[in-house]
Amino acid sequence: MSKVESKIQNVVHGGRVYEAARRWSIDPHDIIDFSANINPYGPPAGVIKALGDIGRCIKSYPDLSVLLHSISEKISVDPRCITIGNGSTALIFAATRAFRPRKALLLEPSFAEYRRALHSVNAVIESLRLLPETNFTPGWDLLNSSIESGSYDVVIINNPHNPSGNLIPTDELYTFANKAKSRNAALIIDEAFIDYVPESSTLPHILDLGNVVVLRSLTKFYSIPGLRIGYAVSQPDCALRMQQQIETWPVSNPAIDAALTALGDNDFDRLNRRQNILNRQEFAAALSELPDIQVFPSSANYLLVRFKGRNCAQLAAWLEQHHILIRLCDSFAGLGAEYARLAVLTPEHNLRLVALTKTWLAESKTL
Amino acid sequence: MSKVESKIQNVVHGGRVYEAARRWSIDPHDIIDFSANINPYGPPAGVIKALGDIGRCIKSYPDLSVLLHSISEKISVDPRCITIGNGSTALIFAATRAFRPRKALLLEPSFAEYRRALHSVNAVIESLRLLPETNFTPGWDLLNSSIESGSYDVVIINNPHNPSGNLIPTDELYTFANKAKSRNAALIIDEAFIDYVPESSTLPHILDLGNVVVLRSLTKFYSIPGLRIGYAVSQPDCALRMQQQIETWPVSNPAIDAALTALGDNDFDRLNRRQNILNRQEFAAALSELPDIQVFPSSANYLLVRFKGRNCAQLAAWLEQHHILIRLCDSFAGLGAEYARLAVLTPEHNLRLVALTKTWLAESKTL
Repeated sequence: MSKVESKIQNVVHGGRVYEAARRWSIDPHDIIDFSANINPYGPPAGVIKALGDIGRCIKSYPDLSVLLHSISEKISVDPRCITIGNGSTALIFAATRAFRPRKALLLEPSFAEYRRALHSVNAVIESLRLLPETNFTPGWDLLNSSIESGSYDVVIINNPHNPSGNLIPTDELYTFANKAKSRNAALIIDEAFIDYVPESSTLPHILDLGNVVVLRSLTKFYSIPGLRIGYAVSQPDCALRMQQQIETWPVSNPAIDAALTALGDNDFDRLNRRQNILNRQEFAAALSELPDIQVFPSSANYLLVRFKGRNCAQLAAWLEQHHILIRLCDSFAGLGAEYARLAVLTPEHNLRLVALTKTWLAESKTL
Repeated sequence: MSKVESKIQNVVHGGRVYEAARRWSIDPHDIIDFSANINPYGPPAGVIKALGDIGRCIKSYPDLSVLLHSISEKISVDPRCITIGNGSTALIFAATRAFRPRKALLLEPSFAEYRRALHSVNAVIESLRLLPETNFTPGWDLLNSSIESGSYDVVIINNPHNPSGNLIPTDELYTFANKAKSRNAALIIDEAFIDYVPESSTLPHILDLGNVVVLRSLTKFYSIPGLRIGYAVSQPDCALRMQQQIETWPVSNPAIDAALTALGDNDFDRLNRRQNILNRQEFAAALSELPDIQVFPSSANYLLVRFKGRNCAQLAAWLEQHHILIRLCDSFAGLGAEYARLAVLTPEHNLRLVALTKTWLAESKTL
């Protein structure tokens, strides 16, 4: 069985609470999970209520049309531009298959599914390294010269960046999208965490360029990763090509019902954006006061932290006794044992992690 | 919007109760749906109970390992041979992508997603016609000579056949799988409705041949199409190649919980198999007594019916006033306006449809 698990989970992601619960023999709901960036205040109250009637909705095949309209209104985009998928991860695969790239450019470290999706179509992958020295900000000169000379069919960019939370200004992304278009490269912009900074989304205007697919998640901000749902936004011809790569019923009825309810709850959006900023600032400030720790600037609901001269795997192992998960970053290109990604949870949980980390730093040895 | 709907639903399937409910302005649960072959007695009672706690399970990312073990025990196959997907439809795509066929052979009429999946990888499709004259039984001589001369990379076979319910004897399927292997063709056997005749499954022994993927649905027999879940069974190397074509979290937690509960309910399996046989026999007998109607032999939970000299679209339109859906078959290759597929529902609903059909036959005109 361990062999199967390692095969399925050969790509490392956070959020493995069921696995930890089995290992620790506890209820998964007793785990404090900093390893996945799920909003701790969700899902919206109405979501649970909407799902209360689940016994009725599961006996019918799903139907996407009402949800398409709802998303269309929420983001002011024609429904023909929207493709609904089994999580934004599934849409990374669908977009990649729609473009059939021979050669792709990634900015790394980044979300591991980009490589998986590109491998699934046998694309050649080239990668530019985002550096801690510049807070993981893209080097536009290098990026622009690479796209001039590289004959890329697809470029994938994460905004805000995962795992750092770095935000790319909208105008820089536009300039780059234009440059990519002039070189016949499609641009996939993964906005999985843009809900925390919606004013920085390139939607809807970037669609006018015609070579762009924007990916949106519904599971992080609305706290429903156990349902699987996300959407992509592109020109209709591209949306059609993506849909041809997707099975007829991509999402479940509980996911549709939850998404419909969540998208209609504007108060939830407003309150949770504000709360995340407050909690992130407090968390980052408290972490920064610890010795030999660097916290990178983040516009999302997670913080990339560097523990200088330490091995975060030891911290993670030590935190297990408190049933706390953090996301190690040694699976990310260019990040080593010193890095961990911490979700911004509630002030109580955040400060508890800071206090425990302080204790660990005092007790443990440097590398 | 109509344009979007037609694009997404350019492949015709039954089970469109939400669309019908909108058109008729009624509650979808007031529709009697003969157009999708969903067990009317499910889901197992425990499934609803398991989903009652949905508010807890949706906040965590799904984990497949317990379900893999459960399926492994149920079908006596090593868990490394099992690939879980977002419905067996998603697994048709994953299997097709794993094999990357240049040329594929279908027996048609058949499930429309085979063509969609093969188109998504630009495969050339050749098709042998299954004929009503032989109750849609494959012509093995023609099939064997085709595979000898055709250089096919993949053959897809449906057992029981959809839309007729025709069952292929296990030994004939073995012989053909051997022949396919000798010509280096992979064989995908779609057993989406085999739960009604489990003794006719080729699992697990056919896996020894090495060139076979068997697809299984969990949504039809267990009445959970609104969740999306199914699995494929193959040799581990093929399972690994399929998993490389699938996103990291292919199914939702409600789907996993429902599947786990359903797979553990052996009484449900036994009782529902027996009930389906009784209901199907009664339904087929009553239909056969109507004038100019041919009912094809079926081993599944649906009946293919030919209304000689009639246009079934008119019957379907007439049945709308009773909020009844049937599955027209003009989208199936080789079947025309005379054919409809009817799910086997409860005796009450089945006999009501027979009575209404009798009335319609008396009132309507022949072609």
